[in-house]
This record gives sequence, C-alpha cells and structure tokens, in this order.
Amino acid sequence: MESFIEVPPDCDFPLENLPWGVFKARTGAIGDSPEVHVGVALGQHVISATTLHVAGYLRDLPEADTRVFAKGRLNELMAAGRPAWRAARATLQRLLSSSEGELRDQPELLARVVHKQEDVEMLLPARIGDYTDFYASRQHATNVGAMFRGLANALNPNWLHLPVGYHGRASSIIPAGASVRRPWGQVMPANASAPVFSPSSQVDFELEVAAFVGPGNALGEPITVAGAWDHVFGLVLMNDWSARDIQKWEYVPLGPFNGKNWATQISPWVVTLEALEPFRCSPPPQIDPEVLPYLREALPYTYDVELTVDITPAGYDRATTVTRSNLKHLYWTFSQMIAHHTAGGCNLRPGDLLGSGTISGEEPGSRGCLLELTHAGRDEVVLESGTAGVAGGDGGGGGVASETPGVRRRYLEDGDEVALRGWCGGEDQRRRIGFGLCNGKLLKCRT
Amino acid sequence: MESFIEVPPDCDFPLENLPWGVFKARTGAIGDSPEVHVGVALGQHVISATTLHVAGYLRDLPEADTRVFAKGRLNELMAAGRPAWRAARATLQRLLSSSEGELRDQPELLARVVHKQEDVEMLLPARIGDYTDFYASRQHATNVGAMFRGLANALNPNWLHLPVGYHGRASSIIPAGASVRRPWGQVMPANASAPVFSPSSQVDFELEVAAFVGPGNALGEPITVAGAWDHVFGLVLMNDWSARDIQKWEYVPLGPFNGKNWATQISPWVVTLEALEPFRCSPPPQIDPEVLPYLREALPYTYDVELTVDITPAGYDRATTVTRSNLKHLYWTFSQMIAHHTAGGCNLRPGDLLGSGTISGEEPGSRGCLLELTHAGRDEVVLESGTAGVAGGDGGGGGVASETPGVRRRYLEDGDEVALRGWCGGEDQRRRIGFGLCNGKLLKCRT
Repeated sequence: MESFIEVPPDCDFPLENLPWGVFKARTGAIGDSPEVHVGVALGQHVISATTLHVAGYLRDLPEADTRVFAKGRLNELMAAGRPAWRAARATLQRLLSSSEGELRDQPELLARVVHKQEDVEMLLPARIGDYTDFYASRQHATNVGAMFRGLANALNPNWLHLPVGYHGRASSIIPAGASVRRPWGQVMPANASAPVFSPSSQVDFELEVAAFVGPGNALGEPITVAGAWDHVFGLVLMNDWSARDIQKWEYVPLGPFNGKNWATQISPWVVTLEALEPFRCSPPPQIDPEVLPYLREALPYTYDVELTVDITPAGYDRATTVTRSNLKHLYWTFSQMIAHHTAGGCNLRPGDLLGSGTISGEEPGSRGCLLELTHAGRDEVVLESGTAGVAGGDGGGGGVASETPGVRRRYLEDGDEVALRGWCGGEDQRRRIGFGLCNGKLLKCRT
Repeated sequence: MESFIEVPPDCDFPLENLPWGVFKARTGAIGDSPEVHVGVALGQHVISATTLHVAGYLRDLPEADTRVFAKGRLNELMAAGRPAWRAARATLQRLLSSSEGELRDQPELLARVVHKQEDVEMLLPARIGDYTDFYASRQHATNVGAMFRGLANALNPNWLHLPVGYHGRASSIIPAGASVRRPWGQVMPANASAPVFSPSSQVDFELEVAAFVGPGNALGEPITVAGAWDHVFGLVLMNDWSARDIQKWEYVPLGPFNGKNWATQISPWVVTLEALEPFRCSPPPQIDPEVLPYLREALPYTYDVELTVDITPAGYDRATTVTRSNLKHLYWTFSQMIAHHTAGGCNLRPGDLLGSGTISGEEPGSRGCLLELTHAGRDEVVLESGTAGVAGGDGGGGGVASETPGVRRRYLEDGDEVALRGWCGGEDQRRRIGFGLCNGKLLKCRT
C-alpha cells in the first residue's frame, strides 16, 4: 500500500496507520475555516478530514453526526462506531493512494488538505469527559507492592480478581510537547513528626498506554467483555506524571490525588484498532486464579506494541533509553477494564480515556517508572552513557550498572525531558505502525 | 423583601434565595426557544433568565459571555464570577419585587418568563467536567475508621493535616428525582475464599453537600485559601449512592471505584453564596494540630445549613427522618478543599463539582449514612414508626431504639426512597433559605 505523499522508511505514519488527531495552524489558518481541524497523519504530513468533508468527501459514514469533522474534536467520530471508522479509513486510504488520482489531481484542494506536521500544533484529540486509570500490569503492581509490603504480600488480595482502577483528573490532561511544572505539595519527610509543604522531590514518569472510548453505554447498562473492544476507538501513549512523596502521604484510604492530578500527558495521534489489527496477540493467561465469568473472554487478545522511555537530562542533548516494555505484558486487557468499569452500571462516554497503569515487564530494564527502576530512590539510573543501567546493590533483579561515568537520577530533576515511544512491527520498518512521540519537559517549581 | 409572585410561608425559595437551575418543559416548549432554559426558582415557580435575556434584560453582567443564558447550562454564568452573579441577582430581585411594575405589567412577557415548577423537568445545572469528592467530616472519618481499625486508630495519620479527597465519576451524576438501579459487582463474602459477582447487598446513601466551581484556575496556578470562596458559585445537596460490599473489596490501594461510580445524585437548584451570606458561621477550630499555612485562613467560615435524610421504605408512603446533621460540622471548609486541590497546580474549571463527603455530627442521630447508623449492618434503623432510632446493643453511642414495631433496615432495600433536605434559618420560616429536595428511589438490580 503506497501513497503519492512521501513516507520515509522509518516513519511512524505509513498509509496503513492513519492515526487520528486534532490540530491547528501554528501561524495563520489552515485553509479557510474553522480554526481547529480533525484529520490523520501520513508520513511527515497531516491530512485535514475537516477540509475534505467541506469539499464533499467523507459524507457517507454510517451513524455519523453530520458535523463529525466540524467541531474541532474527535468525540463525534468516536461516537459513530466501527463501521464509520472503517468507512472513513477506506476513503482516506483510497484518496491518498498512489494509484488514485482523484485528490492528487486537484492541486488547489490538495494544498488545503495536506499540511506539514511542523506547521501545525497538535491539540488534545477529544474533549475528555472522564479519565480512569487502571493498575493492570502484574509486574508493576508486584514491584511496587514488594517495596512496601515485601514480595510475599506484594499483590493485594483483590488484584488477580479484578482490574483495579481509580478515577483520575480529566482537566489536567495535556498533549505531548507541553512542559510540566514540578508541583508543590504536602509531604511527610522521613523521621519527621509533622508534614511540610514543599516542592516535590520525587517527580516520576509512568509509561502507560491509554484507550479512547468510542461509543459509550447508557447509565445502568453494562458493556459485556465479549463486545468491549468495539467500544475502543484507538490507543495513545500516556505519561502519568507522578509526585511520589505527595502520593505516599495522601493516598490512604481514598487513593492518589494531588500526587497525580497536576499533569497527565498523552501523545496526540490516536492509533486505531484497524491499524493495530495485524499485531493482535495473546495476553498473559489468567488461570491461577481463573477470573469470574463477567471478565472471561473466549479468545482474549491484546496488541503487540513495543514501548520505550527516553530521558534527556537537563543540560545535555543526548537521550538515554531507560525502559523497554510492551503493551502485551499487561495482565488485564482493555476489554476487561471496560467490562469491569461498567459492570455496576457506570456509563462511559465517547472520548473518555482509560489508562492502563504503568506497564512493566519481567526484565529489570522493562520497568515503567523510576519508582521501580531505582527501588524508590535507593538506586540510581545512569543516563547519557549510551547504555542505561541501574547502579546500586540490587541482588534481586536490578539492572546492570553502567561503568561509564554519567548523569545519575533517582527521580527527575528540573529540566529533564521524558519521551515515550511506541510502535508495532519490530525491526521490520516496512510494516511499522507507530504512535509518534509523547514528550514533555519538567520545569522548576513555582516560586 | 417581597415578590408579586406568591411564596408560601414554608417554601424553600423566597425572593432572598433565587437559586439557579436548568430546566425544560415537561411537555411542549417553554416560550419560543431554545429547548433548555437557565433560570431561578421563586416560590413554586421557575423564572427563565434565558427568556428575560432574549427580551433584553440581564445584558449588562460584568465579564459574562454574551451567550451566558443561551446554552442550556450554567457553566458560562459560573465562569463569569461574583460581580456578574451579584448583578444578575440584583436585576432579578428588582424585576420580581412587588414594588416594581416593569415585568409584572408586561403580561405577555411574564407568561413566557414565569412557569410552574410542576410543568418543568429539572436537568443537571452544569456540564460537570470533573467531580471530586472529599472526606471532610471528622465524625464520619472517625466513625468509619473506628469500625475498621478501632477508635484509637480511627483517623489515618494524614487526616488532620489535609482534606483527604479523591476523583469521582462525573458521567454518572444525575439530578434529583431519577431512580437508581441496585448495582451488580464483585464482592468478597465473609469467610469465602474467592470473590463472587452478585447484586450488591449493602446499598447505602451518603448525606453530602457539594460546591459548584465558579471561575477556575489555569494549570499550574494554585488558588490560595484566602481567595478560594470566590471560586464557589453555590451549593447543592448530594447523595453519593454507595455499594459498601463492592467498595470494601475493591478500594485498596487506589480508592473507591465501582462501589460509587454507578450513581451520584444532586439537588437541581444551586443555592448561591449571596443567598447564604446571612448564615455564615465558624467551622470547628483547627488547633491540634494547627494546619499548614497554605490551608490556614485568617477568618475561616462556613455556613449553617441544617440537613436531614428521610427514608420512605418500599411499600409504605410514610417517610422517617433517620439523620439530622449540619454543614457546619465539617472539619474542612470548601475554601480549604479548593486550596488543597489546586496546591500542586491542578486546574479547576467552571462547573466542576466538589463534594464534601458524608456529613456527620457528634450525635448518633446525626450520622450521615447507614454504614455509620447501623455500625456496618450490625444494628438496624427502624423506620415508619415516626421516630427513627437504632435497634441493637450499642453501648458506645448508638441511638435510642424505637419500641414501635416498624420496618427495619441495615442497608437499603429495593423500592426504598431516600430524600435529602437542607435549609438555613432554623424555625424562622420568614428567613428560610432552602435547597429543595434531593430524592431518589432504589430500583431492583438488572436481571
């Protein structure tokens, strides 16, 4: 499948991908109107579905709102459901194909439809009504639990029976590229008798993947696990910025609050399940214990998405990969998260966001946050040496310490940049389906 | 202050109140258009600000969006801030006053502006972007903590230092009058070795008051406690329906989720702080320990709002008051909740909802949920006898058991109706500022 628009060989966005996003011109306007457009990524360009719609294309989508591309957000497309998503994808792939002249041969329209990515600013893909974050990685829950309760009691009694999750803060979800500010908060210093209010000294990233909800459900009408994937429009990368010291003091008994609600960052391109289809794979087996019937699927599946986290330390321009993980490591699938979330009748709405929780694998180098990588600050991650590693005496599974003198981190420092990446297709660049970048820089706290 | 529209003597909505709400006609339309109107309550009527605005009134509000009354929601008015709220209130009080003929003497306009409450359906007052629920009653936290950890360890170490809160589910907030369905969920039966999926057998109400956020704050820019009340548009009653068995099994370590997200019910009329002004009072002192400076106010205040909960058991038509409490019992004020919520930079938006958590007082009869009233189902509440009381052997603070044979409840049963009421002014009916009703019926579970 080839397009008349050039797609470099190592690019995340071939014609097979066509992830959806929302954007506006960095300066001036895109075409005529409106200010904010909906569209897809192709190579190093964006394709405006908004302009195509005005020009008479993409009009025959089943169940789709007539203003589906006119509102500067993807909620209406998400609400329409899979038949509409497939129809839009087929139309766009046809119009953009190298074997098709219909769009290519209308230079004036083409100029209004196709824009360089560098000329647009990416916005949030949807108006996010509610954001839920799960805790679906067994390795992550085990690693974190072991630090606080010992390995024997690492997993709480409920963990293997249900996908534990909590309601997160929707207002502070921001798109990739934005900077975040180190938060102040109430923390209890070690050996202190009273808490203090200070800038967090334990700012962390969390490597997550999040699902945008497509069609929702009515209040009181659960979504069954068998049909749950049909309620997923697509996936994005997510960095759930966390202040561990604030979180630790506040979280009993109602869960994380100010430790997390100051910023959650997502990649701006929503990769559809249609694009991910060739990379379906099996999730870890759930046999000990077997899960309850409402969470049990005849043929459970997830997607094989490779994930990395790079840190570029403040004052340097070289990134070091500190984590290599994969979506398929998750114990709970998004279909199970949706079935559980709605089992009591809770309603999901188009554009809601469901985070996976930190995705860690079995290997020490696959741990998805610094809390795990450094054992809550006991060890250090070495950056800028070209080889990431964990320094410190960890007989129980820590990584290999780098011998190269480098920049060391227990938690993030002001000016550090964190970049998440995700892609399918392994080293075979010709079939790479990528997620683009979820990057953000930590700024110093407010003074 | 008197209106030419009749206000019965025991009515919640005199001209001094004028709470804001959103409504549409039960049948047909209100006036010409749009379908959904914004307005205030007066006596047994609603006053359409939307129609008044179309007719040329309420046009001079400082900082207000020109479409402030046209969007079928209060978010734009909430965003405008206190000068606009005061100006709108003054205009409405003038137009509706018995000494003023301007509106009264335009019969055709009057007929389009004033409608009977029984002819309209009340909707949610705002599009609620995020909903946060706190845990601000010391008595509630103590009573619940004592059941699980004993009285000596009832309060967690953080509780007296910060207003503990968590993010709730915005999508399942519904207006008063709607019925709710008993949820299914995963629960761990006593003495069982594995959880089961079943209808909840421990459905409870929670007596709360919630604040609608007015002007918000930018991400990264905290609201100081001194100015925090200016970010509150007004208050409503809230019943945070809870399934205690689901909650108990799921809530460690990330907090309540499916135990609460199946329904949260609010009263539809938002009582403004302007109307509550005469009922300011002092909150409980915070001296042991003193709170950190970011939570400390020179002259802290809250409002003296009496609160009751009535239950009408299934099959009966008589309500029994099971709880008498008061907003002033809360240890943490809404201004402190806002200062804490935003201390790390989290942004609030106009129309966000902040729940107080269950409001319990010192007296056994002031406990704000059945979990507390029945000691987690150990005792029973007696209904329909005319005198509510707690039956069961409770030396440590239980209520007086009624001798009258009555309907007994440990938790709610299918068909039970719960009604929250709130008002200021005590027995002095002439200065009563009321909240209206927050009522809902529990339906049997889905089959």
